[in-house]
Amino acid sequence: MGENVNRKILLASRPVGMPTESNFKMIEEKVPEIKEGEVLIRTLFLSVDPYMRGRMSAAKSYAKPYEVGEPFLGGMVGKIVETRNSRFQVGQFVEGRLEWAEYNVSDGSTIRKINPELAPVSTALHVLGMPGLTAYMGLTYIGEPKEGETVVVSGASGAVGMIVGQIAKLKGCRVVGIAGQDEKCTYLTEELGFDAAINYKTAENLRKAIKEVCPDGIDVYFDNVGGAVSDAVMTLINFQSRTIICGQISQYNLEMPEMGPRVAGQLLTTRSLMKGFIVSDYAQHNKEAFTQLSQWVKEGKIQSRENIVFGFENTVEAFLGLFRGDNIGKQLVKIAEE
Amino acid sequence: MGENVNRKILLASRPVGMPTESNFKMIEEKVPEIKEGEVLIRTLFLSVDPYMRGRMSAAKSYAKPYEVGEPFLGGMVGKIVETRNSRFQVGQFVEGRLEWAEYNVSDGSTIRKINPELAPVSTALHVLGMPGLTAYMGLTYIGEPKEGETVVVSGASGAVGMIVGQIAKLKGCRVVGIAGQDEKCTYLTEELGFDAAINYKTAENLRKAIKEVCPDGIDVYFDNVGGAVSDAVMTLINFQSRTIICGQISQYNLEMPEMGPRVAGQLLTTRSLMKGFIVSDYAQHNKEAFTQLSQWVKEGKIQSRENIVFGFENTVEAFLGLFRGDNIGKQLVKIAEE
Repeated sequence: MGENVNRKILLASRPVGMPTESNFKMIEEKVPEIKEGEVLIRTLFLSVDPYMRGRMSAAKSYAKPYEVGEPFLGGMVGKIVETRNSRFQVGQFVEGRLEWAEYNVSDGSTIRKINPELAPVSTALHVLGMPGLTAYMGLTYIGEPKEGETVVVSGASGAVGMIVGQIAKLKGCRVVGIAGQDEKCTYLTEELGFDAAINYKTAENLRKAIKEVCPDGIDVYFDNVGGAVSDAVMTLINFQSRTIICGQISQYNLEMPEMGPRVAGQLLTTRSLMKGFIVSDYAQHNKEAFTQLSQWVKEGKIQSRENIVFGFENTVEAFLGLFRGDNIGKQLVKIAEE
Repeated sequence: MGENVNRKILLASRPVGMPTESNFKMIEEKVPEIKEGEVLIRTLFLSVDPYMRGRMSAAKSYAKPYEVGEPFLGGMVGKIVETRNSRFQVGQFVEGRLEWAEYNVSDGSTIRKINPELAPVSTALHVLGMPGLTAYMGLTYIGEPKEGETVVVSGASGAVGMIVGQIAKLKGCRVVGIAGQDEKCTYLTEELGFDAAINYKTAENLRKAIKEVCPDGIDVYFDNVGGAVSDAVMTLINFQSRTIICGQISQYNLEMPEMGPRVAGQLLTTRSLMKGFIVSDYAQHNKEAFTQLSQWVKEGKIQSRENIVFGFENTVEAFLGLFRGDNIGKQLVKIAEE
C-alpha cells in the first residue's frame, strides 16, 4: 500500500437480516489534500458499535441511515498529520465521528482534542467517550439508582454495560450482569466487582437464575440486548422500577419482527417506567458526566477493557463480530501506531 | 326487602378468564349498628371500574387482591343516615372506597365530604373523583402535552378517556380517540370536541385509519386498552413521545398472556417513554388537580357522561358490562335516590 493511498469502507448494499461482507465495499482513493481551515487526520483506532447496524437500514430511527455507495461513519481516534487550522497542531490526538477510512479531513467542527495524559487515547472511544457517556446518562437520568437497589445490566461486558455496572456499584447498588460467555461473567464478577453474573446462553431457566441473584427483585434494568433476556428480566421488576432501553442487539438482525410477551401490563401493575434514549438527549449534562467519569478513571474506580482487532482490512469482520458476541469490553480496530 | 336489611356482594371465587356471575355472591345482613366515632352511610351510587378485575386475581399488582369470601371494595357515593362522629351530620354526602353494600360504616377516615352545590354528587365518582384525577395526573405528569402536539386516547369514551381528551384539547393539542362503537365515536367528536375518533372494531386497517387522522404522528398516547389497538398506535409514535399506561382492559380477562410485537425497539429508535402509574403516585398534586378540574367543570369546559344501571342487584351485571364495552361514559349503579 503506497503512502498516499487512503482506504475507505462504503455501504455496498442494505442487509436483510444479518449483515455479511458483501454489504460492504473497500475502495482506495488518494489521500485528500486539505484546504485552508482544514486538518488531515491519520486514523489510529476505529470504533465499531452495534447502533451502526440500524444505520445500514433505511428505516426511520434516531440515527440517519447511511446511503448506499457512501462511506460508513463512526467513532474514531486519530492524530493530526497536516494542519491548515490554527486550533490544531500536527501530532495532536483527536476524536470524532468520521468516515471508516485511514485518513479523514475535518474543518475542526467534527472533532474534539483529547488529552493523552488523562488516559490512553483509545479510551475516548469507550469509557471517556460515547459509550461511557451513554452509560452515565442512561443510568443517572433514567435509572436514577438509589443505594441498596438492585440494578440488572444486559450486554454487561460490552462497552456500555461494563461502565453501567461499575457506576451502579459506586452508587451502592447490588449489580447483576447478564452476558453470553462464562469468560465474560468471570470478568464481571472477578475484575469489575459485579455482585453476580449470569450466562444467558447456558442458564437452564433464565428467569430462575436471575431471581436467585436478585432476591429483592429488580429496581433498575439497563437493557442493551432485548428479546428473551428482557422477557425474563421484566417478570421480576419491582414497583416503580425503571428500565433503560439503550440497545436491542438481539433484534437488529431479525428479518421479521419478533413477537414477545407484552410489557405494558407489567409496567402498569408495577407502576414502572421504560424509556429509550440516545446519549445526545442528555447533552446538557456532558460536562458533568465527562468530569465525573475522568475522575473515576483517574482514581482507578472504573476500569475498562478493550478487544482489539488489528488492521483496517479487518474492520468489517470486527463489526460483524459484535453480533456474534465475540468481544469482551469495547471492540476497537487498531489502524496505526500512535 | 326490609328496612333493616343490608345487601352485600362478596368475591365467591377467583375467575379464570372472563368473570361470570358465579364468581360473585350476594348476601343479606342486618344493617350494622354504629359505635362512638362512626357514621352509617346509605349508598347512593356504586362505581364499577376495570381495575377491579385485577383485584379479583391473586397476582401481585398495585392493588391488593380481594379475598375470597370477603366483600368487594370500590368507589361509592352515599349519604350519612346516622352519625356518632361530630365531623359528619345526617344528610351530608360523602365519597369513599367502601364495600359493595347498601350500607357502610366508617370512622370517617375512609370517606371525604362532597359538595352537592359544585356539581351532581355522582361526579365524585368520575370527573371530580378518581377517574378525573387519573386522567389529569397521567396526562399532565407523564404525557406532558405541548400545544400543537397530537394526543391519542384509547378507551376514549370511558370514565378516564373522555376526560383525558378534553384536557388535551384545553392544552391546545390535536386529539384522536379510539373506541369500540360508532355511537361512542360520534359522542367524542360531536359532544366532546375530539378532532377525530376511530372505531377499532370496524376499521379495516387500524394503523392506516389512525395514520390518516394523525398526519404529524403521535406525541402522546394515553392507553386504557392495550393489545392490538396499542400495537397499531405504537408504530406511529414520534421521536420523544410519551405513552401513559393507565389500563389494559383488553388483556385483563385473557387466560394466557398474549404475545405481541415487542415495543422496546420502537421506544429505542424513537427515544420514547412508556410509563405505568396509578393515581396515588401523584397524590402530592391532588389539590391542584381537583381545583383545576372543578373549575373546568364549573366553566363548562369539561363535560362528562354517565351510564347508569339501576338497582343494587344489577351491580355485577354492570361490572361485567365494562368488559363488553357496554358503557359510554362512566359506568355507575344507582342504589338509592338522593
